[in-house]
Amino acid sequence: MNSKTDTPVTVIGLGLMGRALAGAFLKAGHPTTVWNRTTFKSDQLVADGARLAPTVGDALEAGFLTIICVTDYQAMHELLGASDGELAGKMLINLTSGDSAQAREAAQWAEQRGAHYLDGAIMAIPSAIGTAEAVILHSGPQSDFEAHRSTLDALGTVTYLGADHGLASLYDVAGLAMMWSILNAWLQGTALLRTAGVDAATYAPFAQQIAAGVVEWLPGYAEQIDSGSFPAEVSALETDARAMAHLIEESEVVGVNAELPKLIKAMADRSIAAGHGGEQYPVLIEEFSKPRND
Amino acid sequence: MNSKTDTPVTVIGLGLMGRALAGAFLKAGHPTTVWNRTTFKSDQLVADGARLAPTVGDALEAGFLTIICVTDYQAMHELLGASDGELAGKMLINLTSGDSAQAREAAQWAEQRGAHYLDGAIMAIPSAIGTAEAVILHSGPQSDFEAHRSTLDALGTVTYLGADHGLASLYDVAGLAMMWSILNAWLQGTALLRTAGVDAATYAPFAQQIAAGVVEWLPGYAEQIDSGSFPAEVSALETDARAMAHLIEESEVVGVNAELPKLIKAMADRSIAAGHGGEQYPVLIEEFSKPRND
Repeated sequence: MNSKTDTPVTVIGLGLMGRALAGAFLKAGHPTTVWNRTTFKSDQLVADGARLAPTVGDALEAGFLTIICVTDYQAMHELLGASDGELAGKMLINLTSGDSAQAREAAQWAEQRGAHYLDGAIMAIPSAIGTAEAVILHSGPQSDFEAHRSTLDALGTVTYLGADHGLASLYDVAGLAMMWSILNAWLQGTALLRTAGVDAATYAPFAQQIAAGVVEWLPGYAEQIDSGSFPAEVSALETDARAMAHLIEESEVVGVNAELPKLIKAMADRSIAAGHGGEQYPVLIEEFSKPRND
Repeated sequence: MNSKTDTPVTVIGLGLMGRALAGAFLKAGHPTTVWNRTTFKSDQLVADGARLAPTVGDALEAGFLTIICVTDYQAMHELLGASDGELAGKMLINLTSGDSAQAREAAQWAEQRGAHYLDGAIMAIPSAIGTAEAVILHSGPQSDFEAHRSTLDALGTVTYLGADHGLASLYDVAGLAMMWSILNAWLQGTALLRTAGVDAATYAPFAQQIAAGVVEWLPGYAEQIDSGSFPAEVSALETDARAMAHLIEESEVVGVNAELPKLIKAMADRSIAAGHGGEQYPVLIEEFSKPRND
């Protein structure tokens, strides 16, 4: 991390995450102004050298950039709406959780008021903020990101995704889907193996090995999706579906949960019913790309 | 691979996979006897040097070990049942697809007839057989596995899992669950990102990076499962559930499939309803370990 530590920064919203963000700026040496609806949450930060702004407007004036990390987008609009006239020329970086549509609306709202606006998503827990482990995604105008990157570096591993303000939220939830899916698949396997007396620690390295192998296929499978052509180079979906039936059967035979196996097969079966049984697995993108229509 | 290439082997069942297995033995120099219900499937193998046995009994006599790779366990029982008296002292390695209960029954059946029996599962496509990429799982008596390991090495990366004959099938489907779950999570993310014009090839490396990070947690999470204690060291399940709601919301807002996100949240919600909201994610093993009871 290579942060210009004399740049004054502002953090609005001092929940657990907001306090971690302000703390990381302070630790990196940045003059840090904070604001929160209830002021007691700033006590420790003030003791560590932060300045508590009396108003949102004052907070916005103090920083070269302002991080916003509040409950939701509505809370952000209410806070900033009250200090409407002071947004022009300000750099807002909104790390509040929300969806891509809210991010795009907020960007439009801020830009109409003359502000620079980046939307962001934090893929980390508060205690990781300020370390390289904390991945923080940003989307919006690249020039705004580049202008403030050295300051943002104090927060973790900062990543720029693209000009569309909705990207940070989309990448964030996509990453979370990967996280929970790996954990759930591992729990499914662990549950299966425990019926034979195999403990979780014994199974974990096997699961890691399989996962490491499968992720290697993604770039090749991505080429099939991007070209819209799914020749069964490795195996055909209808062959996979027979193995999926084994997974369901085994889960039921040993008496563990079979909902995840059944969802896996249901998606494949629908794709086969749509005529894709002779094609390769990534053809399922067509099922994943549309709401279930029954 | 370090195969004693003068050991005679037998392969019963010459579907796509059986032919690949026999072909790998031939290529490694093993005198190879084959048998199939319909003999024309052996034509190429015979041209390559295999001997076609006239009967199952003759095939069993010819090999120092016999690989069985047929449609299902019933087919195996029918084939071997007809040559009942000749099983004593034979080494059978059954790579037919089935579940753990079928494997344990087959082991008992074979052992009652005086045969040595290993059950196996092939985690590979036929074209990978004979290369290190083909992982072949084995379970049953370790002494039998060790006695034949150098011969089995000709088929791929052979792995021994334990004495319980059901383990090969259990590890196999557990690995498949991991495989499809990673692919599905990636498809979910790809579908989300494509709504913003991000192509699959652009998203793939991000998904790989997330997956690589998450698998690192498995050994630590396994300790929680094995100790039956799930303190929220990183995050509490009820915090995760709020982020799961974001994933569902985002999927619905952009109009992609939300079934996988909904299953992820349903499992967590059930665990929270059972009183585990303040514990860590691996506490979900309790949900994964029981059939859905509604």
